[in-house]
Amino acid sequence: MAESARQIADELRDRIQSGELAPGARLPGEPALVREYGVAKETARRALTLLVTEGLAVRRRGSGTYVREFRPIRRVANRRLAQEGWGSGRSIWAADLGERPLSVTDLKVYETTAPDHVARVLNLAEDTPVVIRDRVFVVEGEPVQAATSYLPAELVRDTAIAQPDTGPGGTYARLAELGLKPVRFTEELRARMPSQAEAERLHLAEGTPVVEIWRTAFTEDDRAIEVNKMLLDAGVYVMEYHLNS
Amino acid sequence: MAESARQIADELRDRIQSGELAPGARLPGEPALVREYGVAKETARRALTLLVTEGLAVRRRGSGTYVREFRPIRRVANRRLAQEGWGSGRSIWAADLGERPLSVTDLKVYETTAPDHVARVLNLAEDTPVVIRDRVFVVEGEPVQAATSYLPAELVRDTAIAQPDTGPGGTYARLAELGLKPVRFTEELRARMPSQAEAERLHLAEGTPVVEIWRTAFTEDDRAIEVNKMLLDAGVYVMEYHLNS
Repeated sequence: MAESARQIADELRDRIQSGELAPGARLPGEPALVREYGVAKETARRALTLLVTEGLAVRRRGSGTYVREFRPIRRVANRRLAQEGWGSGRSIWAADLGERPLSVTDLKVYETTAPDHVARVLNLAEDTPVVIRDRVFVVEGEPVQAATSYLPAELVRDTAIAQPDTGPGGTYARLAELGLKPVRFTEELRARMPSQAEAERLHLAEGTPVVEIWRTAFTEDDRAIEVNKMLLDAGVYVMEYHLNS
Repeated sequence: MAESARQIADELRDRIQSGELAPGARLPGEPALVREYGVAKETARRALTLLVTEGLAVRRRGSGTYVREFRPIRRVANRRLAQEGWGSGRSIWAADLGERPLSVTDLKVYETTAPDHVARVLNLAEDTPVVIRDRVFVVEGEPVQAATSYLPAELVRDTAIAQPDTGPGGTYARLAELGLKPVRFTEELRARMPSQAEAERLHLAEGTPVVEIWRTAFTEDDRAIEVNKMLLDAGVYVMEYHLNS
Protein backbone atom coordinates (compact mmCIF):
# COMPACT_ATOMS: atom_id res chain seq x y z
CA MET A 1 0.00 0.00 0.00
CA ALA A 2 2.76 2.39 0.97
CA GLU A 3 4.48 1.57 -2.31
CA SER A 4 1.46 2.47 -4.39
CA ALA A 5 1.22 5.78 -2.54
CA ARG A 6 4.85 6.48 -3.38
CA GLN A 7 4.29 5.64 -7.05
CA ILE A 8 1.31 7.98 -7.28
CA ALA A 9 3.31 10.68 -5.50
CA ASP A 10 6.17 10.16 -7.97
CA GLU A 11 3.81 10.77 -10.90
CA LEU A 12 2.23 13.85 -9.34
CA ARG A 13 5.69 15.18 -8.49
CA ASP A 14 6.73 14.84 -12.12
CA ARG A 15 3.65 16.81 -13.18
CA ILE A 16 4.49 19.55 -10.67
CA GLN A 17 8.15 19.71 -11.64
CA SER A 18 7.34 19.80 -15.37
CA GLY A 19 5.03 22.76 -14.71
CA GLU A 20 1.93 20.91 -15.90
CA LEU A 21 0.59 21.48 -12.39
CA ALA A 22 1.60 25.10 -11.70
CA PRO A 23 2.06 26.81 -8.30
CA GLY A 24 -1.42 27.36 -6.83
CA ALA A 25 -3.04 24.64 -8.97
CA ARG A 26 -5.35 22.18 -7.25
CA LEU A 27 -4.06 18.60 -7.23
CA PRO A 28 -6.42 15.71 -8.05
CA GLY A 29 -8.42 14.91 -4.91
CA GLU A 30 -8.62 11.55 -3.15
CA PRO A 31 -11.73 10.39 -5.08
CA ALA A 32 -10.06 11.25 -8.39
CA LEU A 33 -6.91 9.32 -7.43
CA VAL A 34 -9.01 6.36 -6.27
CA ARG A 35 -10.73 6.28 -9.66
CA GLU A 36 -7.59 6.88 -11.71
CA TYR A 37 -5.30 4.41 -9.96
CA GLY A 38 -7.78 1.90 -8.55
CA VAL A 39 -6.32 2.25 -5.05
CA ALA A 40 -7.86 2.56 -1.59
CA LYS A 41 -8.78 6.02 -0.33
CA GLU A 42 -6.10 5.71 2.37
CA THR A 43 -3.46 5.12 -0.32
CA ALA A 44 -4.62 8.20 -2.24
CA ARG A 45 -4.42 10.22 0.96
CA ARG A 46 -0.89 8.99 1.65
CA ALA A 47 0.23 9.95 -1.84
CA LEU A 48 -0.95 13.52 -1.31
CA THR A 49 0.59 13.57 2.18
CA LEU A 50 3.97 12.63 0.73
CA LEU A 51 3.90 15.72 -1.50
CA VAL A 52 2.90 17.88 1.46
CA THR A 53 5.83 16.54 3.50
CA GLU A 54 8.21 17.34 0.64
CA GLY A 55 7.07 20.96 0.71
CA LEU A 56 5.63 20.63 -2.81
CA ALA A 57 1.96 20.87 -1.82
CA VAL A 58 -0.24 22.35 0.89
CA ARG A 59 -3.57 21.16 2.26
CA ARG A 60 -6.39 23.65 2.65
CA ARG A 61 -8.98 22.49 5.13
CA GLY A 62 -12.21 21.43 3.44
CA SER A 63 -10.89 22.42 0.05
CA GLY A 64 -8.17 20.08 -1.16
CA THR A 65 -4.45 19.91 -1.83
CA TYR A 66 -2.70 22.57 -3.89
CA VAL A 67 0.73 23.01 -5.46
CA ARG A 68 2.69 25.12 -3.01
CA GLU A 69 3.23 28.75 -3.96
CA PHE A 70 5.74 29.46 -1.21
CA ARG A 71 9.14 29.83 -2.82
CA PRO A 72 12.02 27.96 -1.22
CA ILE A 73 14.45 30.00 0.87
CA ARG A 74 18.13 29.81 -0.04
CA ARG A 75 20.33 29.83 3.04
CA VAL A 76 23.87 30.68 1.91
CA ALA A 77 25.97 30.03 4.97
CA ASN A 78 29.05 31.79 3.65
CA ARG A 79 27.18 34.94 2.66
CA ARG A 80 25.45 35.09 6.02
CA LEU A 81 28.69 34.73 7.92
CA ALA A 82 31.27 36.32 5.66
CA GLN A 83 32.25 39.93 6.03
CA GLU A 84 32.32 40.02 2.26
CA GLY A 85 29.90 37.95 0.21
CA TRP A 86 30.86 35.27 -2.24
CA GLY A 87 30.38 35.55 -5.96
CA SER A 88 27.21 33.69 -6.81
CA GLY A 89 27.56 30.41 -8.69
CA ARG A 90 25.14 28.69 -10.97
CA SER A 91 22.58 26.79 -9.00
CA ILE A 92 20.67 23.51 -9.26
CA TRP A 93 17.58 24.68 -7.41
CA ALA A 94 15.55 27.76 -8.12
CA ALA A 95 15.27 29.42 -4.73
CA ASP A 96 15.16 32.81 -3.23
CA LEU A 97 18.49 34.63 -3.08
CA GLY A 98 17.90 35.67 0.47
CA GLU A 99 16.35 39.08 -0.05
CA ARG A 100 13.09 38.14 1.69
CA PRO A 101 13.27 39.44 5.23
CA LEU A 102 13.04 37.03 8.14
CA SER A 103 10.90 38.58 10.85
CA VAL A 104 11.31 37.44 14.44
CA THR A 105 8.57 36.25 16.74
CA ASP A 106 8.32 34.46 20.06
CA LEU A 107 11.59 36.00 21.29
CA LYS A 108 12.77 34.95 24.73
CA VAL A 109 16.05 36.06 26.31
CA TYR A 110 16.98 34.54 29.64
CA GLU A 111 19.74 33.09 31.77
CA THR A 112 19.97 29.47 32.86
CA THR A 113 22.58 26.73 33.30
CA ALA A 114 24.08 25.30 30.13
CA PRO A 115 22.78 21.94 28.91
CA ASP A 116 25.58 19.34 29.10
CA HIS A 117 26.31 19.14 25.38
CA VAL A 118 26.39 22.94 25.07
CA ALA A 119 28.68 23.27 28.09
CA ARG A 120 31.02 20.73 26.50
CA VAL A 121 31.22 22.62 23.20
CA LEU A 122 31.65 26.01 24.92
CA ASN A 123 34.28 24.44 27.20
CA LEU A 124 32.37 25.50 30.31
CA ALA A 125 32.24 23.67 33.65
CA GLU A 126 29.02 21.81 34.43
CA ASP A 127 26.12 24.06 35.50
CA THR A 128 27.80 27.25 34.28
CA PRO A 129 25.18 29.91 33.49
CA VAL A 130 24.51 30.84 29.87
CA VAL A 131 22.40 33.54 28.24
CA ILE A 132 19.86 31.97 25.89
CA ARG A 133 18.32 33.83 22.96
CA ASP A 134 15.38 31.82 21.64
CA ARG A 135 13.20 32.90 18.70
CA VAL A 136 11.21 31.81 15.70
CA PHE A 137 11.80 33.29 12.25
CA VAL A 138 8.78 33.95 10.07
CA VAL A 139 8.65 34.53 6.31
CA GLU A 140 5.44 35.68 4.66
CA GLY A 141 3.42 34.57 7.66
CA GLU A 142 4.98 31.10 7.90
CA PRO A 143 7.27 30.05 10.75
CA VAL A 144 10.25 28.59 8.92
CA GLN A 145 12.99 28.32 11.54
CA ALA A 146 13.47 28.21 15.31
CA ALA A 147 16.86 29.30 16.62
CA THR A 148 18.34 29.05 20.11
CA SER A 149 21.66 30.73 20.87
CA TYR A 150 23.76 29.99 23.93
CA LEU A 151 26.49 32.35 25.16
CA PRO A 152 28.52 32.30 28.42
CA ALA A 153 26.54 34.53 30.83
CA GLU A 154 29.67 35.80 32.53
CA LEU A 155 30.75 37.48 29.28
CA VAL A 156 27.46 38.85 27.97
CA ARG A 157 24.93 39.29 30.78
CA ASP A 158 25.55 43.02 31.14
CA THR A 159 25.61 43.73 27.41
CA ALA A 160 23.04 44.31 24.65
CA ILE A 161 23.33 40.58 23.86
CA ALA A 162 21.21 39.92 26.96
CA GLN A 163 18.63 42.48 25.77
CA PRO A 164 15.77 41.69 23.37
CA ASP A 165 17.25 44.09 20.80
CA THR A 166 20.97 43.47 20.36
CA GLY A 167 21.39 46.57 18.18
CA PRO A 168 22.93 47.09 14.73
CA GLY A 169 24.91 44.10 13.49
CA GLY A 170 23.41 41.91 16.20
CA THR A 171 25.17 39.49 18.52
CA TYR A 172 28.33 39.10 16.43
CA ALA A 173 28.89 42.88 16.24
CA ARG A 174 28.48 43.12 20.04
CA LEU A 175 30.89 40.21 20.58
CA ALA A 176 33.45 42.02 18.39
CA GLU A 177 33.11 45.12 20.60
CA LEU A 178 33.84 42.91 23.61
CA GLY A 179 37.08 41.70 21.98
CA LEU A 180 35.45 38.37 21.15
CA LYS A 181 34.99 38.71 17.42
CA PRO A 182 33.94 35.46 15.77
CA VAL A 183 36.32 34.64 12.93
CA ARG A 184 35.39 31.08 12.07
CA PHE A 185 32.35 28.88 12.36
CA THR A 186 31.47 25.22 12.31
CA GLU A 187 28.02 24.09 11.21
CA GLU A 188 26.83 20.54 11.92
CA LEU A 189 23.63 19.40 10.18
CA ARG A 190 21.27 16.48 10.57
CA ALA A 191 17.91 15.86 8.93
CA ARG A 192 15.29 13.93 10.88
CA MET A 193 11.60 13.74 11.71
CA PRO A 194 10.54 16.37 14.28
CA SER A 195 9.34 15.80 17.82
CA GLN A 196 5.75 16.76 18.58
CA ALA A 197 6.75 20.07 20.18
CA GLU A 198 8.97 20.96 17.21
CA ALA A 199 6.24 20.13 14.70
CA GLU A 200 3.83 22.38 16.56
CA ARG A 201 6.27 25.25 16.89
CA LEU A 202 7.01 25.32 13.14
CA HIS A 203 3.43 24.45 12.10
CA LEU A 204 4.78 21.46 10.16
CA ALA A 205 2.49 19.27 8.11
CA GLU A 206 2.54 15.71 9.42
CA GLY A 207 5.50 13.80 8.07
CA THR A 208 7.62 16.84 7.17
CA PRO A 209 11.29 16.43 8.15
CA VAL A 210 13.37 19.11 9.84
CA VAL A 211 17.01 20.08 9.42
CA GLU A 212 18.81 20.61 12.71
CA ILE A 213 21.90 22.81 12.44
CA TRP A 214 24.28 23.49 15.31
CA ARG A 215 26.61 26.38 14.62
CA THR A 216 29.61 27.12 16.82
CA ALA A 217 31.38 30.48 16.56
CA PHE A 218 35.09 30.65 17.38
CA THR A 219 37.30 33.65 18.16
CA GLU A 220 40.77 34.25 16.73
CA ASP A 221 42.31 32.32 19.64
CA ASP A 222 39.99 29.31 19.01
CA ARG A 223 37.63 30.02 21.86
CA ALA A 224 34.08 28.73 21.26
CA ILE A 225 32.02 31.82 22.10
CA GLU A 226 28.50 30.97 20.92
CA VAL A 227 26.49 27.88 20.07
CA ASN A 228 23.34 28.33 17.98
CA LYS A 229 20.87 25.51 17.45
CA MET A 230 18.68 26.09 14.41
CA LEU A 231 15.70 23.97 13.46
CA LEU A 232 14.54 24.45 9.85
CA ASP A 233 11.37 23.39 8.08
CA ALA A 234 12.99 21.07 5.51
CA GLY A 235 10.20 21.79 3.06
CA VAL A 236 11.20 25.42 2.54
CA TYR A 237 14.98 25.56 2.78
CA VAL A 238 17.84 25.04 0.34
CA MET A 239 21.14 25.24 2.20
CA GLU A 240 24.21 26.36 0.28
CA TYR A 241 27.88 26.19 1.23
CA HIS A 242 30.96 27.42 -0.62
CA LEU A 243 34.25 25.62 -0.13
CA ASN A 244 37.81 26.01 -1.34
CA SER A 245 40.13 23.14 -2.10
CA MET B 1 -3.45 9.41 17.50
CA ALA B 2 -0.40 10.65 15.68
CA GLU B 3 0.26 13.03 18.56
CA SER B 4 0.24 10.30 21.14
CA ALA B 5 2.70 8.38 18.99
CA ARG B 6 4.99 11.42 18.95
CA GLN B 7 4.78 11.79 22.72
CA ILE B 8 5.70 8.15 23.29
CA ALA B 9 8.54 8.49 20.79
CA ASP B 10 9.76 11.60 22.64
CA GLU B 11 9.95 9.65 25.90
CA LEU B 12 11.71 6.67 24.34
CA ARG B 13 14.14 9.04 22.60
CA ASP B 14 15.02 10.61 25.95
CA ARG B 15 15.72 7.15 27.37
CA ILE B 16 17.98 6.35 24.40
CA GLN B 17 19.83 9.65 24.55
CA SER B 18 20.35 9.41 28.30
CA GLY B 19 21.90 5.98 27.79
CA GLU B 20 19.25 4.19 29.86
CA LEU B 21 18.47 2.26 26.67
CA ALA B 22 21.94 1.47 25.32
CA PRO B 23 22.93 0.66 21.71
CA GLY B 24 21.71 -2.87 20.96
CA ALA B 25 19.07 -2.83 23.73
CA ARG B 26 15.58 -4.03 22.88
CA LEU B 27 12.93 -1.30 23.05
CA PRO B 28 9.57 -2.00 24.71
CA GLY B 29 7.38 -3.86 22.20
CA GLU B 30 3.95 -2.82 20.98
CA PRO B 31 2.07 -4.80 23.64
CA ALA B 32 4.19 -3.24 26.40
CA LEU B 33 3.56 0.27 25.04
CA VAL B 34 -0.17 -0.44 24.72
CA ARG B 35 -0.23 -1.47 28.40
CA GLU B 36 2.02 1.34 29.63
CA TYR B 37 0.39 4.24 27.75
CA GLY B 38 -3.15 2.93 27.24
CA VAL B 39 -2.97 3.59 23.49
CA ALA B 40 -4.04 1.60 20.44
CA LYS B 41 -1.61 -0.93 18.98
CA GLU B 42 -1.35 1.22 15.82
CA THR B 43 -0.24 4.20 17.94
CA ALA B 44 2.41 2.10 19.66
CA ARG B 45 3.63 0.91 16.26
CA ARG B 46 3.85 4.51 14.98
CA ALA B 47 5.88 5.58 18.00
CA LEU B 48 8.45 2.87 17.28
CA THR B 49 8.39 3.73 13.57
CA LEU B 50 9.26 7.35 14.37
CA LEU B 51 12.42 6.23 16.15
CA VAL B 52 13.31 4.00 13.22
CA THR B 53 12.91 6.90 10.78
CA GLU B 54 15.18 9.04 12.93
CA GLY B 55 17.90 6.42 12.65
CA LEU B 56 17.76 5.79 16.41
CA ALA B 57 16.27 2.29 16.22
CA VAL B 58 16.12 -0.68 13.86
CA ARG B 59 13.42 -3.31 13.42
CA ARG B 60 14.40 -6.97 13.32
CA ARG B 61 11.81 -9.11 11.63
CA GLY B 62 9.88 -11.24 14.08
CA SER B 63 12.02 -10.06 16.96
CA GLY B 64 11.29 -6.43 17.84
CA THR B 65 12.80 -2.96 17.72
CA TYR B 66 16.31 -2.30 19.00
CA VAL B 67 18.42 0.77 19.72
CA ARG B 68 20.59 1.23 16.66
CA GLU B 69 24.22 0.20 17.00
CA PHE B 70 25.31 1.73 13.70
CA ARG B 71 27.35 4.81 14.53
CA PRO B 72 26.52 7.98 12.61
CA ILE B 73 28.92 8.95 9.84
CA ARG B 74 30.46 12.41 10.02
CA ARG B 75 30.78 13.98 6.59
CA VAL B 76 33.21 16.89 6.88
CA ALA B 77 32.90 18.66 3.56
CA ASN B 78 36.01 20.77 4.02
CA ARG B 79 38.22 17.83 4.94
CA ARG B 80 36.95 15.82 2.00
CA LEU B 81 37.61 18.65 -0.43
CA ALA B 82 40.52 20.50 1.08
CA GLN B 83 44.07 19.77 0.11
CA GLU B 84 44.93 20.29 3.75
CA GLY B 85 42.51 19.30 6.50
CA TRP B 86 41.00 21.67 9.02
CA GLY B 87 41.80 21.52 12.68
CA SER B 88 38.99 19.63 14.37
CA GLY B 89 36.60 21.58 16.54
CA ARG B 90 34.51 20.48 19.45
CA SER B 91 31.37 18.81 18.26
CA ILE B 92 27.72 18.60 19.29
CA TRP B 93 27.13 15.11 17.96
CA ALA B 94 29.19 12.05 18.65
CA ALA B 95 29.86 10.66 15.20
CA ASP B 96 32.53 8.86 13.33
CA LEU B 97 35.51 10.97 12.31
CA GLY B 98 35.49 9.53 8.85
CA GLU B 99 37.98 6.70 9.27
CA ARG B 100 35.44 4.03 8.31
CA PRO B 101 35.94 3.19 4.66
CA LEU B 102 33.11 3.68 2.20
CA SER B 103 33.05 0.78 -0.21
CA VAL B 104 31.50 1.18 -3.65
CA THR B 105 28.84 -1.00 -5.18
CA ASP B 106 26.50 -0.85 -8.13
CA LEU B 107 28.99 1.23 -10.18
CA LYS B 108 27.86 2.30 -13.63
CA VAL B 109 29.91 4.52 -15.95
CA TYR B 110 28.28 5.60 -19.20
CA GLU B 111 27.74 8.43 -21.63
CA THR B 112 24.39 10.11 -22.30
CA THR B 113 22.96 13.58 -22.90
CA ALA B 114 22.94 15.95 -19.93
CA PRO B 115 19.65 16.44 -18.07
CA ASP B 116 18.46 20.06 -18.49
CA HIS B 117 19.34 21.26 -14.99
CA VAL B 118 22.79 19.67 -15.16
CA ALA B 119 23.45 21.20 -18.61
CA ARG B 120 22.48 24.60 -17.22
CA VAL B 121 24.90 24.34 -14.27
CA LEU B 122 27.74 23.01 -16.44
CA ASN B 123 26.99 25.76 -18.98
CA LEU B 124 26.53 23.20 -21.78
CA ALA B 125 24.19 23.48 -24.76
CA GLU B 126 21.05 21.35 -24.65
CA ASP B 127 21.63 17.66 -25.41
CA THR B 128 25.40 17.88 -24.93
CA PRO B 129 26.82 14.46 -23.98
CA VAL B 130 28.08 13.90 -20.45
CA VAL B 131 29.92 11.05 -18.78
CA ILE B 132 27.96 9.78 -15.79
CA ARG B 133 29.52 7.95 -12.86
CA ASP B 134 26.79 6.39 -10.77
CA ARG B 135 27.42 4.34 -7.61
CA VAL B 136 26.22 3.43 -4.14
CA PHE B 137 28.46 3.74 -1.09
CA VAL B 138 28.23 1.02 1.54
CA VAL B 139 29.45 1.12 5.14
CA GLU B 140 29.47 -2.04 7.24
CA GLY B 141 27.04 -3.71 4.85
CA GLU B 142 24.55 -0.82 4.75
CA PRO B 143 24.00 1.33 1.67
CA VAL B 144 24.31 4.87 3.04
CA GLN B 145 24.69 7.09 -0.02
CA ALA B 146 24.04 7.09 -3.76
CA ALA B 147 26.16 9.45 -5.85
CA THR B 148 25.87 10.42 -9.51
CA SER B 149 28.59 12.55 -11.11
CA TYR B 150 28.19 14.37 -14.41
CA LEU B 151 31.17 15.58 -16.45
CA PRO B 152 31.33 17.01 -19.99
CA ALA B 153 31.99 13.97 -22.22
CA GLU B 154 34.09 15.96 -24.66
CA LEU B 155 36.67 16.57 -21.94
CA VAL B 156 36.78 13.22 -20.18
CA ARG B 157 35.56 10.43 -22.47
CA ASP B 158 39.05 9.26 -23.40
CA THR B 159 40.45 9.49 -19.87
CA ALA B 160 40.44 7.30 -16.74
CA ILE B 161 37.41 9.30 -15.56
CA ALA B 162 35.34 7.33 -18.08
CA GLN B 163 36.77 4.04 -16.74
CA PRO B 164 35.36 2.15 -13.76
CA ASP B 165 38.60 2.72 -11.84
CA THR B 166 39.70 6.36 -12.07
CA GLY B 167 43.05 5.61 -10.41
CA PRO B 168 44.85 7.18 -7.43
CA GLY B 169 43.23 10.43 -6.25
CA GLY B 170 40.15 9.72 -8.33
CA THR B 171 38.27 12.07 -10.62
CA TYR B 172 39.66 15.30 -9.16
CA ALA B 173 43.27 14.16 -9.56
CA ARG B 174 42.56 13.21 -13.19
CA LEU B 175 40.88 16.58 -13.84
CA ALA B 176 43.98 18.32 -12.44
CA GLU B 177 46.15 16.36 -14.90
CA LEU B 178 43.90 17.61 -17.71
CA GLY B 179 44.51 21.22 -16.62
CA LEU B 180 41.03 21.38 -15.07
CA LYS B 181 41.89 21.27 -11.38
CA PRO B 182 38.89 21.99 -9.16
CA VAL B 183 39.73 24.82 -6.77
CA ARG B 184 36.34 25.69 -5.31
CA PHE B 185 33.06 23.93 -4.71
CA THR B 186 29.45 24.77 -4.05
CA GLU B 187 27.23 22.35 -2.14
CA GLU B 188 23.45 22.77 -2.15
CA LEU B 189 21.45 20.65 0.31
CA ARG B 190 17.80 19.79 0.76
CA ALA B 191 16.17 17.29 3.11
CA ARG B 192 12.99 15.56 1.99
CA MET B 193 11.14 12.28 1.94
CA PRO B 194 12.51 9.85 -0.68
CA SER B 195 10.80 8.60 -3.81
CA GLN B 196 10.01 4.90 -3.93
CA ALA B 197 13.04 4.12 -6.10
CA GLU B 198 15.34 6.06 -3.78
CA ALA B 199 13.98 4.32 -0.69
CA GLU B 200 14.59 0.94 -2.30
CA ARG B 201 18.08 1.81 -3.47
CA LEU B 202 19.21 2.90 0.00
CA HIS B 203 17.17 0.22 1.84
CA LEU B 204 15.48 2.99 3.84
CA ALA B 205 13.00 2.18 6.59
CA GLU B 206 9.60 3.64 5.78
CA GLY B 207 9.39 7.31 6.74
CA THR B 208 13.15 7.95 6.78
CA PRO B 209 14.11 11.27 5.12
CA VAL B 210 17.02 11.71 2.73
CA VAL B 211 19.46 14.57 2.29
CA GLU B 212 20.02 15.51 -1.34
CA ILE B 213 23.31 17.31 -1.97
CA TRP B 214 24.33 18.78 -5.32
CA ARG B 215 28.00 19.64 -5.48
CA THR B 216 29.48 21.70 -8.30
CA ALA B 217 33.25 21.82 -8.81
CA PHE B 218 34.78 24.95 -10.37
CA THR B 219 38.21 25.48 -11.94
CA GLU B 220 40.48 28.47 -11.33
CA ASP B 221 38.81 30.33 -14.19
CA ASP B 222 35.33 29.68 -12.78
CA ARG B 223 34.39 26.92 -15.15
CA ALA B 224 31.90 24.42 -13.71
CA ILE B 225 33.61 21.12 -14.49
CA GLU B 226 31.62 18.52 -12.54
CA VAL B 227 28.21 18.20 -10.94
CA ASN B 228 27.72 15.47 -8.34
CA LYS B 229 24.30 14.58 -6.97
CA MET B 230 24.51 12.76 -3.66
CA LEU B 231 21.59 11.18 -1.88
CA LEU B 232 22.25 10.39 1.79
CA ASP B 233 20.33 8.27 4.29
CA ALA B 234 19.46 11.05 6.75
CA GLY B 235 19.43 8.56 9.61
CA VAL B 236 23.16 7.90 9.45
CA TYR B 237 24.82 11.18 8.45
CA VAL B 238 26.02 14.24 10.33
CA MET B 239 27.20 16.85 7.83
CA GLU B 240 29.84 19.32 8.93
CA TYR B 241 31.03 22.54 7.31
CA HIS B 242 33.75 24.96 8.35
CA LEU B 243 33.43 28.62 7.44
CA ASN B 244 35.50 31.75 7.87
CA SER B 245 34.07 35.19 8.53
